[in-house]
Parts: sequence; structure tokens; C-alpha cells
Amino acid sequence: MIEKRNTIRMEQAREILCNQVTHLPTRKMRIGEALNHVLQEPIFAPFSAPYFRRSGYDGFAITELDDQNYPITLRVVAEVPCGETYNKPLKQGETIRIMTGAKVPDNASKIIMLEQSKETNNPNEIMLINTQKSSNITEVGAEFAKGDLLLDRGHLLNAGSISLLAAFGVNEVQVIQNPKVAILSTGSELVAAGNPLPDGKIYNSNQPLLESLLHIHHAEVCVAEQLPDNYLDTKNRLLELTNIADIIVTTGGVSVGDFDFIADIATQEAELLFNKIQMRPGSPTTGMWLNNTLIIALSGNPGACFTGFYLLVEPVLAVLMGKGETATKKVQAKMATDYTKNNGYDRFLRGIYHLSETGEYLVEPVGSDMSSALGNLHLTTCLLKIPRGKIGKRKGEEVEAWLLSSK
Amino acid sequence: MIEKRNTIRMEQAREILCNQVTHLPTRKMRIGEALNHVLQEPIFAPFSAPYFRRSGYDGFAITELDDQNYPITLRVVAEVPCGETYNKPLKQGETIRIMTGAKVPDNASKIIMLEQSKETNNPNEIMLINTQKSSNITEVGAEFAKGDLLLDRGHLLNAGSISLLAAFGVNEVQVIQNPKVAILSTGSELVAAGNPLPDGKIYNSNQPLLESLLHIHHAEVCVAEQLPDNYLDTKNRLLELTNIADIIVTTGGVSVGDFDFIADIATQEAELLFNKIQMRPGSPTTGMWLNNTLIIALSGNPGACFTGFYLLVEPVLAVLMGKGETATKKVQAKMATDYTKNNGYDRFLRGIYHLSETGEYLVEPVGSDMSSALGNLHLTTCLLKIPRGKIGKRKGEEVEAWLLSSK
Repeated sequence: MIEKRNTIRMEQAREILCNQVTHLPTRKMRIGEALNHVLQEPIFAPFSAPYFRRSGYDGFAITELDDQNYPITLRVVAEVPCGETYNKPLKQGETIRIMTGAKVPDNASKIIMLEQSKETNNPNEIMLINTQKSSNITEVGAEFAKGDLLLDRGHLLNAGSISLLAAFGVNEVQVIQNPKVAILSTGSELVAAGNPLPDGKIYNSNQPLLESLLHIHHAEVCVAEQLPDNYLDTKNRLLELTNIADIIVTTGGVSVGDFDFIADIATQEAELLFNKIQMRPGSPTTGMWLNNTLIIALSGNPGACFTGFYLLVEPVLAVLMGKGETATKKVQAKMATDYTKNNGYDRFLRGIYHLSETGEYLVEPVGSDMSSALGNLHLTTCLLKIPRGKIGKRKGEEVEAWLLSSK
Repeated sequence: MIEKRNTIRMEQAREILCNQVTHLPTRKMRIGEALNHVLQEPIFAPFSAPYFRRSGYDGFAITELDDQNYPITLRVVAEVPCGETYNKPLKQGETIRIMTGAKVPDNASKIIMLEQSKETNNPNEIMLINTQKSSNITEVGAEFAKGDLLLDRGHLLNAGSISLLAAFGVNEVQVIQNPKVAILSTGSELVAAGNPLPDGKIYNSNQPLLESLLHIHHAEVCVAEQLPDNYLDTKNRLLELTNIADIIVTTGGVSVGDFDFIADIATQEAELLFNKIQMRPGSPTTGMWLNNTLIIALSGNPGACFTGFYLLVEPVLAVLMGKGETATKKVQAKMATDYTKNNGYDRFLRGIYHLSETGEYLVEPVGSDMSSALGNLHLTTCLLKIPRGKIGKRKGEEVEAWLLSSK
């Protein structure tokens, strides 16, 4: 009646899942959409920056010949606002009124700041009172030469990189697609929030949880739906979803009960990767490969679903996105309190952390450690691992912890 | 020719801006949309959780009278999957097959796990081999009593809180609206990426920068456009935008030059808050109040725009969103290198940080400190403050730093 499952450790399950996938295909994307995508081509400067001699101040451009014996009075031959040009050579005795950021004539040697100027009675003249050592001109290529590497392949595009691309007129880049993820919550007991709740049923909290977590991690939720416990319907829908989604995350139905159809599908229809992890919560978490699509089947318990997302789904998202590292950062931490329960399996507790004055991450469990607990997910800022055994961990002992990204 | 401006410090400018605004109006929002919004009502549990006695395992529910002299053989009177109920009292000698999460009959005292059962020759009977101390039943209200505070007013909704709301069937909540921000880049020299670049003009990098930064900080960019330098057009467009946006962020045109029309509008049309900050980059950054709308007018230099966003715009967004703190976290840090330039003004350098083994934030400048520099924004993970003066800061000295949120 009870099937015997092979148990692996969380770390193995994570590695197996990550090894199943590689980064998704690349595509051209406009930079306005490309934030939080990984660049899949190196970007070289298409021109020098600045590509013209740029005035650092509002002021007056002068030739080297005039740059002496201050105060000097020069003839103002043009006004050059930002974005316009004066394309004649500047003669001795001439100056142009020039704005910050405007192109400086080739043979101008210095910009005298506006603050060092004084109007004369002649509206076509200006008196320049004093000079400075600095030319106040940014020379061509001062920041980048044409051909310089701006951003390398593998770079995760942030606000600064988007602006750098824009500054060089690069409007489209080749990036790795962010994953399309289908969420399928299974369970005849599930009712969507906003509907009446018949006796014995519960509201579906895992689906909004996963939608939010996927959104936070820049995955696209292409489908989010729930199904009653039914083998055939579930199998058929999963097969359909394999044609839509890059990966599928399911909740529920992975245990050994009579209605755990995801578990049955994993062994009967799919290529099973694992269906028992030496971890709490979430020991029946299942990995499978169906119709060329990876399915990560999480336990339906909210705590297990939350923990499973961070430990098992997020690393896969990172691989799919071509990221070198997960957003969830693993650290060595110290217990801020005792946790001395007997653990048959490695236990991954929802916890909170803070940084001590001496640079240690102090972690402690938050709220209930029951896998069915709902009331601590929103307080959780880290997961911490209590290895299996009778001892647990005492205050001050080292533990592994994962700092969660929640923004 | 040169107007004299009153100079205030960055910290004052920031305080002035934040004091101009309060949080935006609240509105009902479906929980699927409410992530990263601040709750504006306390949410109390509408029912206990669990609201029925819940089976913790797949197994067999038995009465207290049968819970002795194992092994025992009982008559299986029903099968109760998750989400269904068995509403008759259980009699002595009877058991129901029950699934994890299903409702346990009122007078059942224990769930015997499936692993402790054995089929008999009679398909209507089951032999239960052994018992456990635990009832394996989660009692009504074990996690929350009806009326318990689930989430308080002021809570910033994260994935866990969305799932908690869903679990209680709460489908809509009263939240503070996230701000609608209009971006107006001014400058006749600006060309949008993707277009040819006439001599003397530059690509507009500030607009994509601000769009990305606003997106990261969960503000809605309601308008993003650029305008040539023209007083009347700029004034008219700003007035229109005051009817659309909660705040307006402009770039460029704030200096003292002949084409700095934002500066003129600030003094001639608007209620000027400040137009000179004792900071580099971004000293001409201007705050004004136009037609009941706050305008933060940043310098057009990329470095100034970036720095100004984090130090002056993000705090205002946090107030508008009803957040108790900014996403940009201020810390005391130590210089990892010397920076000994003479600073006429407080200088806010783009930098990188790491956490030392002894828990100190070590910071150092990254790339060029020129306000026109573009090539370090994507590398910047913090801003650090070098106070005005001739000395700068030496390696090991304390500085204020702001750790940037970039996700």
C-alpha cells in the first residue's frame, strides 16, 4: 500500500534540478524592456565618449592666443547652445558664448566660466576677467574610446547599464529570455479567495504566493490555475502546459495518499528525477521531466511551498535566466536562540536575521515550524538549516542560512 | 547676469522635499495587484485557522474508545478526501480513511498514520497495527483565532502577506496607491536611442535611467518624454503633467545658463523650494511646487541624475507610498581607499561596498567622479559622502554611505 521512495538530500535535489536545464534562448529586446535580463552579447562602444570636445561649463570659448593678460575683451561671434555647433575656426580676438555640454570648436583651447565674465557697453563684446588652469573642456574619448567594452556577455542589466546603452544609442540588445512559468495548484479542497468557502475546504494561498515570488524574481507567470484531484485532467493539463511554459511548478498531490495524483503522474507518465527529499518541510517534493519540460512539484503545505520555492525553484530560475548566482544568498550564520528539537530530516526553518556589530549573521526561527503554518511567511527574511539529528542547534552554534530577496 | 542662489545642504533639501508630501490616497486593490503596496487598514482573521479539525496525515480516524490494545481491526465506513467531510459521529469499531488536510469528525480522537495500517481479507475492514502519542489532528484555531490581527496598517505587502490574505479569503485590501511619476528630460541636444545622432547632440540616457530606477522602486512611470529647450513649451507641458502625475522628475535646465528654462520656471512660475544644494554632483538640483504638484528637477548630468534619484527622489517616493523607510539604506562605513581631493561642496561619490569579516561596510569610489561620467552607474552599489573640505577621507576613516537597492 505504501510505496517505498528513494530519499536524497536537498542539496542533491537542487543540483539535479539545476543540471536539467540551461539558459533559455536569447532574443533581441528593446532596452526599455531589458531591465533584469542577462546580456548575451558583449556591447562595445560604437563611438568615443564624448565624441566631440565638450564644454564643462557655461562660458566663453577662447583661443590659446587670447589666453593671457586678463582682463581681456573679445568679440562674441556666436552663441552655441547645447546640441548646436559652431563649425568655423575661432580667430584670435573672437569668442563664442557656449553652454555646458555643447561642442567646443576644434581650435578653442579653454572655456572661461560665465562667472568670470562681465558685459561691456558693446553688446557684441564680452570682458573676461580671469582664467583658470583647467581648460574646462572634456576631450574626445575622455571616458570611452570607440570599441571599448561597455558591458560584457553575462551582465545582468540594471538601471545603470540601461542608461549606458542608451547613451551610446544602443536601443536593442540580445538578452536571455526570462522564463515563462506555469503554476498549477492541485487539490479538490482548494477555493480561490473571493469565493464562499464550503465546509472542509480551504482557500488557495499557494498560488498567490508563487505568483508573487515569481514576479519578485522576474519570471513571467504564463498560467496560474488550480485543478481538483483527478488523474486524467491533471495529466492532460500538465501536458498542455508543457507546450506553453518553460517550467511548471505545481503544488499538492505529491505525497503517498490515494489522491496524490501528481505523485502518480511522476512515476507513470514522466521521467522521475526524485520524489523524496531528506528535508522538512517538503519531503515529498518531486522533480520530473515531462514532454521535455521540467516540473517541480512542491508540497501543498504553505511552509513547504515557500521553502521549496527559495531552495529549489529559484536556483532553477537563475540557471534559466543565465544568472551566475541565485538571488537567495547563502551565508554561514550563528543561531541567536536554541532550537533543540529532534529532527529526523534536515529541517529548513523560516527565520529572521540581523547583522551583529561584529559582522555575523544572527538567525533565529520566526513563528511556527509547522509546514502548514501560514502566519510567518511574511515575516521570514531567511531560511536556516538544522541538520538532522537529535541535538538541534544551540544559541551561538553555526548554521547555514539563506538570505531571501523580497523586493 | 549671474543670479545669486541660496545654498542648502543635501540633508536639508531631502527634508524639505519629504515634508512637502504625505502618502497618496488609498484604494481597494485585489491582492493579485497589491504586492509592494502599503496596507492602509488592519486585517483581522475572519475565521479561525484552521477553522475545522484538520488531519495532519493520511490515515484512519478513530474514536478514543478504540485507541487501545493494538493491533485493532476496524470497519471502514467512509473515505474522506481533502475538501470533503464526514458529518456523522464516528462509532466505536468504526474508522474513516482520511487524507492529509481533510476535516476530522468531531468525536474522532486520533489519526492513525497510513504507514501503521494493514489491509485484511475483508475490503471493508482495516487493521491498525500501532499508535502514536500525538493525535495527528490540528485543532480549530491552532494557528489563528477568529479576530486575530493578521497584518497591521502600514505593513508593506510581500509575497508572504499576499498568501496570508488569500488563505483567509481576503481578496481585496485597502492600500496606498503607488505614485504616478512623470519624467521630463529637457535639452535641445537630446536624441532618443535608436535614432541617428546629429553632430553636437547626445543620446538621452537619463530618461531610460529614471524609468528603470522608478520601475525598480515600484513607482508607475505615467509619462516619459523629452523636450527641447523652450520656456513656453516646457512650462505648458509641466502644467499639463501636474494634472496627470503625483510628482514630476525633470532632468536638465536647472543651471544658470541662458537655456536653463527649468531654472527660470522654478523662480517665475512655481513656488521655489530650493535651487542650489551644497553637493556634488547635482548642485543646481531644484525643488519646486507647481500647481499643487512637487517637481524635483535634477541636473542633466548622468552622475548627478543617478545620485539625485537615490538621495532626493527615492525618499519622496517612500513618503508617497507610506513606507516607514527608504529602500536606500544609510550606514556608517569605512573608506577602503583614500579619496583626498579638495571638495568645495559635500561630494556624493558613486561607490561599491563590501562587508568586512568584522562587520564593517568598506566603501570605495568606483570609476570616475565626474558628474558627466556614464561608465560607472551600472557598477555602483552605494553612494558615499566626502564632506566638503580640503582633506577628503583617508583609508580607514568613517564615512556616511547609502546602500542602493537595485533589484
